[in-house]
Amino acid sequence: MMAQSDRPAATIANVYRGTFMHSTQKTALEVLEDELLGVDTDGKIAFMGRGAELQTLSQTFGFNPSEVTQLAKDEFFIPGLVDTHIHACQYSYAGTALDMPLLQWLNTYTFPVESQFTDLNFAQRVYSQVVKRTLRNGTTTACYFTSIHTDASLLLGKLANDFGQRALVGKVCMDINDFVEHYKETTQESQDETCRFIKELLDKKYPLVRPVVTPRFALSCKETLLGELGAIAKKHNLPIQTVMAHGCHLSDEELVIFKETGASLSHCPNSNISLCSGLLDVRNVLKHQVKLGLGTDVAGGYSASMLDAVRRARDTSKVLTIQNPNYNTLTFEEVFRLATLGGSQALSLDGQTGNFEVGKDFDALRVNVAAPGGPMDLSVNSEEPKIILEKFLNLGDDRNIAEVYVAGRKVVPFTD
Amino acid sequence: MMAQSDRPAATIANVYRGTFMHSTQKTALEVLEDELLGVDTDGKIAFMGRGAELQTLSQTFGFNPSEVTQLAKDEFFIPGLVDTHIHACQYSYAGTALDMPLLQWLNTYTFPVESQFTDLNFAQRVYSQVVKRTLRNGTTTACYFTSIHTDASLLLGKLANDFGQRALVGKVCMDINDFVEHYKETTQESQDETCRFIKELLDKKYPLVRPVVTPRFALSCKETLLGELGAIAKKHNLPIQTVMAHGCHLSDEELVIFKETGASLSHCPNSNISLCSGLLDVRNVLKHQVKLGLGTDVAGGYSASMLDAVRRARDTSKVLTIQNPNYNTLTFEEVFRLATLGGSQALSLDGQTGNFEVGKDFDALRVNVAAPGGPMDLSVNSEEPKIILEKFLNLGDDRNIAEVYVAGRKVVPFTD
Ligand SMILES: [Zn+2]
Ligand SMILES: [Zn+2]
Repeated sequence: MMAQSDRPAATIANVYRGTFMHSTQKTALEVLEDELLGVDTDGKIAFMGRGAELQTLSQTFGFNPSEVTQLAKDEFFIPGLVDTHIHACQYSYAGTALDMPLLQWLNTYTFPVESQFTDLNFAQRVYSQVVKRTLRNGTTTACYFTSIHTDASLLLGKLANDFGQRALVGKVCMDINDFVEHYKETTQESQDETCRFIKELLDKKYPLVRPVVTPRFALSCKETLLGELGAIAKKHNLPIQTVMAHGCHLSDEELVIFKETGASLSHCPNSNISLCSGLLDVRNVLKHQVKLGLGTDVAGGYSASMLDAVRRARDTSKVLTIQNPNYNTLTFEEVFRLATLGGSQALSLDGQTGNFEVGKDFDALRVNVAAPGGPMDLSVNSEEPKIILEKFLNLGDDRNIAEVYVAGRKVVPFTD
Repeated sequence: MMAQSDRPAATIANVYRGTFMHSTQKTALEVLEDELLGVDTDGKIAFMGRGAELQTLSQTFGFNPSEVTQLAKDEFFIPGLVDTHIHACQYSYAGTALDMPLLQWLNTYTFPVESQFTDLNFAQRVYSQVVKRTLRNGTTTACYFTSIHTDASLLLGKLANDFGQRALVGKVCMDINDFVEHYKETTQESQDETCRFIKELLDKKYPLVRPVVTPRFALSCKETLLGELGAIAKKHNLPIQTVMAHGCHLSDEELVIFKETGASLSHCPNSNISLCSGLLDVRNVLKHQVKLGLGTDVAGGYSASMLDAVRRARDTSKVLTIQNPNYNTLTFEEVFRLATLGGSQALSLDGQTGNFEVGKDFDALRVNVAAPGGPMDLSVNSEEPKIILEKFLNLGDDRNIAEVYVAGRKVVPFTD
């Protein structure tokens, strides 16, 4: 079936032909074989159609059939992965320091490290690492927490823009810190710096980078500050993020409030396990129709790769099944949807990204499961696309992510 | 402190200098900085000593100090990893088919695939893949289950020998199969073929590959067969393996029997989670002084990498901590010991491998955490070796395993 935009015919920049796999609201995994997808010069998906419709589409959209990029047999496209919760400033110690629960961990490891982000050279190095690392691993959209430092946070916005990642960036607000005394702001500073951060970031007019108001969490913000931040968000029509990433203890009543207020939840299974926070019952969250995405929660989660989040989300669901054999385990297709479409919904970015729909931006990973020197072996018998996707989700890594596109622009491999 | 063998001075083939990290019975993680380790022409560790002792050691052991291999700043050696339980014949579908519990999974996926190993071309392809993949990921010792087919099992022995992996290979015995009727043997066939397998494999005189008597598990072997296999193992003084890999439901009484009979347990956390079998309480097993190693249990476990087994073992312990906050979570050092020394003990190979001790074979991984294009970023601040090991265990992969040695021979990178 052919689908095309209502907008006046745009100039087509690229057309791809091959297997596309993605999620829709109705179907956790839709497999489109021998599909054609055209991207216009604005980076938006201009049309999708069957390979057999090539001639008609080329005439309608004015592209040359000989310029279509044909995927190889072991390649396919999936939507870019959406990391709904990652602490950019904690990346420097990802993979270490996982021997204590959340609050103790914050005071021992996190606050001392975060306070170093007054140093912009340090920030430049860590933030370049995290943007590049997540992009290589297929995170086309990231929702970042930074530190309390406005200038370092603006720098992260610049780096995301330079490398081409879609990003929400939140300068952290905290006017309470009983443990690491020097790592906090006054209530006034927190408000003023939040306003400065928003203004300066918006002034840059980065096409894909937006500020987000970020009270760290209830324990580190006074009531007045929370109220003021709410007002600031309302005034600028900006989203608010706070640590709902560890929301594995939410009651049904609280989930109803989430649903009613339109609040979203970020499921960060690696962090929940690594910090022994708990096991989120995703099935129950979905039953309450609360918007839900996956997140890495670096560095409470040790891996910055969303493929790890996919695997750990499935593990968590399997552990819930061990505890209750009647539990309806999440399928890999459902977890894949959370990592893509679900994340875009949780961040209210599903108008722009999350799956392959005409009119959305082309945020996509070109996956090659047969990448030479890669982490997985293909089955001796050939498999259907769905099985190959399952194998990639379980065993693949950045070596299998041949190309990453954000809004039509090829951002991986890096050009530098 | 200098340590050296009682044997007559052997010819030294290689001497390495740098950081070595390993486990001992007393210490889960011993860090030896600026250590010297000499390997003789038989592949055994001839001496270990401090860098400052270079002159003395070079005179005693007759090597040229200028020929010492110096590790770089971001490199270290750890012992080779020991996979105590892996089904070589299931490798072809690793990473897929994880949507049902053990018994159903065996009948739906496993038995049909295993029955294909009558075809030696198929076996050659799958078994080459699994030996190379596990070696690349640092598995210097593997304890394999194969299928019921003697010739394919002998082929696995040959491939392990050719590629230089230390291996126990077990032709699977099963004279009951109510589901896939053609995939079983008669009791007599099972005995005869086990004897033929043992004889032909021993006749090859492969230095590092040994047969192991392998009744699949109680459900697939008649009582008579189990008795006969016991007698065969006794006669040839060979170990027996059976599926103790899913032993997460063992009672304290059963653990006491394990201890008394000297039986070992293989902890395969990925498989236990993926097939929803249960969560092994490793702390309790250790308390009973039962020999315990880690295993991948491919393809019930989806990853053939022991680094994954290390991560999932830690996850399992953390989930037990979520269930009971007073639980004494396994440290990464303890899990590291299970993956190396513990595995060698579980397989009764700790006289030859498992850690760096004079007289043992040099089974080792040369790890480079700064490998270009690798999966992890180093901290901007420099870290102590122990922290770098933790980071490697959490985030590293085969790209960080620059070289793999088995009995002194460099087996990775592959020479072909
Ligand atoms: Zn967080
Ligand atoms: Zn098994």
